[in-house]
Amino acid sequence: MNEAIKVMSERASVRNYEKGRQLPDETLQQILELAGKAPSAWNLQHWRFIVIKTEEQKEKIFPIAYNQQQVLDASAVILVIGDAEADKSAAEVFAGVPAEARDTLLSNIYGAYKRGRDFGEREALKNASLGAMQLMLAAKALGVDSCPMSGFDHERITGVLDIPDRFIPVMMITLGYAAAPIEQHGRFAIETLVMKEKFEEK
Amino acid sequence: MNEAIKVMSERASVRNYEKGRQLPDETLQQILELAGKAPSAWNLQHWRFIVIKTEEQKEKIFPIAYNQQQVLDASAVILVIGDAEADKSAAEVFAGVPAEARDTLLSNIYGAYKRGRDFGEREALKNASLGAMQLMLAAKALGVDSCPMSGFDHERITGVLDIPDRFIPVMMITLGYAAAPIEQHGRFAIETLVMKEKFEEK
Repeated sequence: MNEAIKVMSERASVRNYEKGRQLPDETLQQILELAGKAPSAWNLQHWRFIVIKTEEQKEKIFPIAYNQQQVLDASAVILVIGDAEADKSAAEVFAGVPAEARDTLLSNIYGAYKRGRDFGEREALKNASLGAMQLMLAAKALGVDSCPMSGFDHERITGVLDIPDRFIPVMMITLGYAAAPIEQHGRFAIETLVMKEKFEEK
Repeated sequence: MNEAIKVMSERASVRNYEKGRQLPDETLQQILELAGKAPSAWNLQHWRFIVIKTEEQKEKIFPIAYNQQQVLDASAVILVIGDAEADKSAAEVFAGVPAEARDTLLSNIYGAYKRGRDFGEREALKNASLGAMQLMLAAKALGVDSCPMSGFDHERITGVLDIPDRFIPVMMITLGYAAAPIEQHGRFAIETLVMKEKFEEK
């Protein structure tokens, strides 16, 4: 089977890790670089990755993540944060674009973000989640297991990790090596998920 | 190179498609099935996919997507919608789980969704975006190009496609075959994206 299809078919969330097993820095670097190649609206790249590897920080995060053991056992914990004011990156992103096209793009972006904080946060959630998914698949492609976690106190982690108001927590991802065979969970039948031409009640 | 890494490295957004080229039904089916294997909070699978292939529906969507030509030229347009009331799926998802564990899970889920509509919508945006990213990578793995689009009138499309209040538009994705060589866009340097142990100003 095509290796990419295999990765997408076989990735499953792992909560039970080989505690103490190191994730090589080069592997982690490669995972994060691949994650950063995800697409985003206007290429604003709303994702940032806070990599937590020290025992001290993992201990701090453990209660904030409702004492989920995987936080302590994982080789690394990645907090994916999203840029709720990504318009601030626009001038840098389009620096190399010819002036006329750039001015139009910047004007569209600044106009959209004027809709307010809620718009910016929703763009951050969507686009940083694209990066998060690519991160988990990149990990799997490199033999590293993962688990996405929404269950943590978003407000407390913002304080503990000094996250400024511009960014919001999107997802915590544990990375490591499964300590037991991976179990796949069931999914809805494709017929439940897919609708033709317009919404269909299922 | 590992085929999965190649797919993640080489996927790039394509807006210029070979108009009229058919996307085989089996390929589309495989893409959607792989997308549905993405992870989601509590395995609630917040994504649904409205597949638009007829000229009639594409013409209807064209102005709603601000006259972006790719909507007409793509072999298919997928509207990814997100389940803002995914707690309604919980009983079905956990039907096979032993009663005690199931009751705890359901109580956690119902408790979380009692926080209100905004919580449900944000969960829908995040989790359906995980499905959207896996969809685009599955396409690429099968030789199909794509482009994620946020730029469309979310309110109008809801009306035109009869989307009920339970679901919200998350992302439109065009699928097809690039009509010109694919151009990759620049990305922030990895040093800009990655922070160690806590937030670092960059």
